[in-house]
Amino acid sequence: MEQVELILSGGQVVTMNEAFDLIPDGAVAINGGKIVAVGGRAEILERYHALKLIDCAGKLILPGLINAHTHVPMTLLRGMADDLRLDVWLLGYVMPTERTFVTPEFCELGTTLACAEMIRGGITTFADMYYFEEHVAKAAAAAGMRGVLGQSILKYPTPDAESYEEALARCRVFIEAWRGHPLITPAVAPHAPYSNTDESLRRCTDLALEYDVPLLIHIAETKFEVDNSLNDSGRTVVEHIDSVGMLEAKVLAAHCVHITKTEMTTLGEQGAGLAHCPTSNLKLASGIAPVTAMLKQGLHVGIGTDGAASNNDLDMFEEMRLAAILAKTEANDPTALPARDALLMATRQGAAALFLGDVTGSLEVGKRADVIVMETDVLHNSPMFHRDPNAIYSRIVYAGKANDVTDVICEGRILMRERVLLTIDTESALREAQAIAAKVDAFLHAREASVLSKLLAIGGLRQSESFEVQVKARLSAEDDIQRLLRHPDVEVVQQVRYRQYDTYFLFADSAEGRVRFREDVRVGAENEIGSARARLTLTTPEKEREFHGAVLLSHSRFIADATNTLRFYREYFRPTEERELAKDRSRWHILYQGVLFYVNVDTILTPALSDKFIEIKSRTWSARDAEQKADRIHEMLGILGIGAGDVVRDEYLEMRD
Amino acid sequence: MEQVELILSGGQVVTMNEAFDLIPDGAVAINGGKIVAVGGRAEILERYHALKLIDCAGKLILPGLINAHTHVPMTLLRGMADDLRLDVWLLGYVMPTERTFVTPEFCELGTTLACAEMIRGGITTFADMYYFEEHVAKAAAAAGMRGVLGQSILKYPTPDAESYEEALARCRVFIEAWRGHPLITPAVAPHAPYSNTDESLRRCTDLALEYDVPLLIHIAETKFEVDNSLNDSGRTVVEHIDSVGMLEAKVLAAHCVHITKTEMTTLGEQGAGLAHCPTSNLKLASGIAPVTAMLKQGLHVGIGTDGAASNNDLDMFEEMRLAAILAKTEANDPTALPARDALLMATRQGAAALFLGDVTGSLEVGKRADVIVMETDVLHNSPMFHRDPNAIYSRIVYAGKANDVTDVICEGRILMRERVLLTIDTESALREAQAIAAKVDAFLHAREASVLSKLLAIGGLRQSESFEVQVKARLSAEDDIQRLLRHPDVEVVQQVRYRQYDTYFLFADSAEGRVRFREDVRVGAENEIGSARARLTLTTPEKEREFHGAVLLSHSRFIADATNTLRFYREYFRPTEERELAKDRSRWHILYQGVLFYVNVDTILTPALSDKFIEIKSRTWSARDAEQKADRIHEMLGILGIGAGDVVRDEYLEMRD
Repeated sequence: MEQVELILSGGQVVTMNEAFDLIPDGAVAINGGKIVAVGGRAEILERYHALKLIDCAGKLILPGLINAHTHVPMTLLRGMADDLRLDVWLLGYVMPTERTFVTPEFCELGTTLACAEMIRGGITTFADMYYFEEHVAKAAAAAGMRGVLGQSILKYPTPDAESYEEALARCRVFIEAWRGHPLITPAVAPHAPYSNTDESLRRCTDLALEYDVPLLIHIAETKFEVDNSLNDSGRTVVEHIDSVGMLEAKVLAAHCVHITKTEMTTLGEQGAGLAHCPTSNLKLASGIAPVTAMLKQGLHVGIGTDGAASNNDLDMFEEMRLAAILAKTEANDPTALPARDALLMATRQGAAALFLGDVTGSLEVGKRADVIVMETDVLHNSPMFHRDPNAIYSRIVYAGKANDVTDVICEGRILMRERVLLTIDTESALREAQAIAAKVDAFLHAREASVLSKLLAIGGLRQSESFEVQVKARLSAEDDIQRLLRHPDVEVVQQVRYRQYDTYFLFADSAEGRVRFREDVRVGAENEIGSARARLTLTTPEKEREFHGAVLLSHSRFIADATNTLRFYREYFRPTEERELAKDRSRWHILYQGVLFYVNVDTILTPALSDKFIEIKSRTWSARDAEQKADRIHEMLGILGIGAGDVVRDEYLEMRD
Repeated sequence: MEQVELILSGGQVVTMNEAFDLIPDGAVAINGGKIVAVGGRAEILERYHALKLIDCAGKLILPGLINAHTHVPMTLLRGMADDLRLDVWLLGYVMPTERTFVTPEFCELGTTLACAEMIRGGITTFADMYYFEEHVAKAAAAAGMRGVLGQSILKYPTPDAESYEEALARCRVFIEAWRGHPLITPAVAPHAPYSNTDESLRRCTDLALEYDVPLLIHIAETKFEVDNSLNDSGRTVVEHIDSVGMLEAKVLAAHCVHITKTEMTTLGEQGAGLAHCPTSNLKLASGIAPVTAMLKQGLHVGIGTDGAASNNDLDMFEEMRLAAILAKTEANDPTALPARDALLMATRQGAAALFLGDVTGSLEVGKRADVIVMETDVLHNSPMFHRDPNAIYSRIVYAGKANDVTDVICEGRILMRERVLLTIDTESALREAQAIAAKVDAFLHAREASVLSKLLAIGGLRQSESFEVQVKARLSAEDDIQRLLRHPDVEVVQQVRYRQYDTYFLFADSAEGRVRFREDVRVGAENEIGSARARLTLTTPEKEREFHGAVLLSHSRFIADATNTLRFYREYFRPTEERELAKDRSRWHILYQGVLFYVNVDTILTPALSDKFIEIKSRTWSARDAEQKADRIHEMLGILGIGAGDVVRDEYLEMRD
């Protein structure tokens, strides 16, 4: 009799091998981290003596589940911000938080917490993309899980790299350190084509090819991404990565919600793997991936939970179930993606998508011993039918729950026994996670405390503040602006004309100030529409000071290019009120006695006002300078013949005819 | 200090009242089945002394969940047959099984099992539609759950009524017996407009109005149903029920996947409630209900699991989550149906949809005490963020699980305490359920054992079997059929011409016989296409007997009108092979010496054969009659001058040119 380390005995073995063999009253013998025998219980127990025997009578023995796409450290951000649009969520909450909090320790802790949840739910292998991936590797290996772990590479600064060159260098070190590890497959993870340059995509590919490691990337997650790709390069997203040669590498493409049949063919011919993430795709309203068509083309499609910050859990039972039922509606065919195929995607096919097809994903002699045991004779899965051999897959996929998993083995090591995690100190991880969440809460709370801090949190590099002295006056029909422009003390430097479309966000506490989203559209001499530019300004209602002649000193506390859309800012700031102002503005940059002033002649279009207005203003930087400029503005009003009666203190927004 | 029966104390109270009040460290005082106080813990404990106190520290206290649409006895059929098209599933499996197994005992047991699962997952109220609903009521009341229970009414015979008149009579008795019960609201449940007549729909409405009870019905579940409704009556489904006056009653309309904005307005104006069943709709590929639009119109939309035979569980946490994320993709807006709204649908709004808005659905003084306690400081829901008050709804909806519920109270009675069910003997229910499942398995197994038994299981009323004597011969160009037709012993009764399109299903065991799906299309004198008719026949390959002159006695073991499509039968029988045969057939009904015979002249179109063939045949019922008819067929072959060399024994399917 041969001695082996471990035998799982009794219970029905769901092999998920090519023949989909089901072995009632079966057993799996494990030694040296490998599966050495799969068969009937009596037969196995006759041939092997086990140092340890797990009785699985009445349960199912299955291959460990494969989570084909996730970001495990983000488990620490679960439920931080939900029900937001992708850009508000990402730019407004996730990225500012990541910039502040993501450290090696954060990544290790988040990975540990995620591994605890994944093991708890029967997952033995996962594919990850995040920062400080060497710390993800360290924590995953300690937890005993198998991982294909991709170091993220973006063209922007990230928590672990100032540039993509630095990220690539980090990635090389990571690969060198971890390749050959029995559990960890290091990988290169260019975040997405749109967040990389062609150059960085090429260098990622070269690195993946040099070390023969997988390349993980987000592909065609949203229609917006595809439209942009077509606009920018005339290529679909898959055509784009193909054009830089990326598909020569072992590519695992996550999402692929919006890809064509031709793109599927390309991915298939080049042997790429795909990761389908139905919960994340639905929750972010990205769409429904055409999984039935992908499978029909013979693609290797796995199933992924995506990160817990967008899911909000790492439950492959829910993900399998959703994949199966969503595909039916997508294909308009209730026989599409039957339960067995969904389980296949979460096991053998998922392993193939991760380029681990020879290593894991099914219970077959020679594969590594990644095995789980689950109960199905439970209340929510009773009664049991046996007539149709597919009933067993139906029980697993349509009514099985993460909590039904009782035992988990990875690489022959027992990670969970009778629902008790053996490799992770869950309590301490939960405590530390809660401490971080409290800090993140405090950080976001402080930031949300004022409109200004919210603005600063998403501000670009070119934000600034300014002080201006300014006067505004009603311009009667007789007033001739030329009197000022042709005055000997005046030199006109520049003349431009704009349409200005302002949207003001007002808040319950008016002391917070107002956020103005302004779109300036250039208008040419022939009224032709020119280039547009959007800026964001935070103004406080109170004027800093008033000089003689109603010349006011105002303070804009924040000015920056508006890099996002009006809709983004609306959802981010959630103003209590919104007002619109549109005007036609002729603007002269003049030197008056050698000092730069701006003269605006405005026609207010929305809300329509019958009068025209003139504004004279100048930037300032000291009280003394402001006072001198106020004097000059006063002189210019004199040249124009504008008296105190025509000066207005109201903002346009306040005026009505 | 006032004495009350029960206080839930500590923990955060999620009231789901109009103001969505959240009370950290709160308490709920319960007496006489009612909520008598909701507030801060200290304040409640100061005012009330409790006979029993449940410590909820660190947990959430929520209103019990409302399952707005289900068929609880069908829990006994969970996982019996999956991944089938609706008609195959319903007509091929569910209905034959129901005809055989659904009894009062079946309904009580199924209800008990379902109640156990629902209580386990925090559901306190459900709306049901099934047969023997008085037994559903009995079991639900015993389990302590609140139910709006509809006795099903169909125009077809059902397990509990031979006709809709009988079903209506049963329903009246049911209402009389149960109205006024503190937990049970009896209701009328016409299954659907398409499974009722206008008359039965009207009588259902009258009954609901007479007793002022709700009326439960399936509405616009599939596009097919809507198309049929438009074809049949020119009305959409909602227009149809409105036209019979049904919306005067308190209608709870399940599914409403395919309804227009106008139909939503109609439902809203008439105060109908809706039950959204996302898992069932996806799994059966029915589509995605426009929930965002429904909510925008102010409709009361609850969430339902549907029956466990099509879900496959009764888990409102999964259903809430799916409702929330699916709505985002349906509306193409990730901010659609945020977590709080999804929980609202599963609580207060669900109660309103069930016309129990004053009774349950929120934690408010005066409402009945339907309360659940759940943990969220669990691995799969950590860490916790508190900055955004919506985070708590996000935790419940996006990462909460049925298993997180620890305590359930309905009508002030504790149904589950620390995850132990107190009103149901789960073990004995599971044992009995498994015994029934074994019987159903055996029944289906026997039925699937032969093609004939599968046919009989779905057979219509007009099925029959027949014996025929027949001969077939090659017709040469010179052979003149007129020689027979004009013969003095022959009288031509009828002449018709058909195109016959046959699809044969062949099975691995040829002894099973072949199923032939035949579509007869009449062809007129001018080759115009006439009416079509489809029939299903099971023929065995062996001939019963051969007479002289190669006249064969054949036996068709089953003939019936094909009431379903070819596709249905294909998916139901799953043949190993399928063959097509198409022919042009001229057919004469003749009396030869006063006896009826059929003479067919066939041109085989698919597979194309160059020869024409003649068949002469007659029905028979005894060996003696068969022999006499075989003699006459032999004589007719003589009249036509057809010799033994032209007679063919092969079936058309076997022939090749």
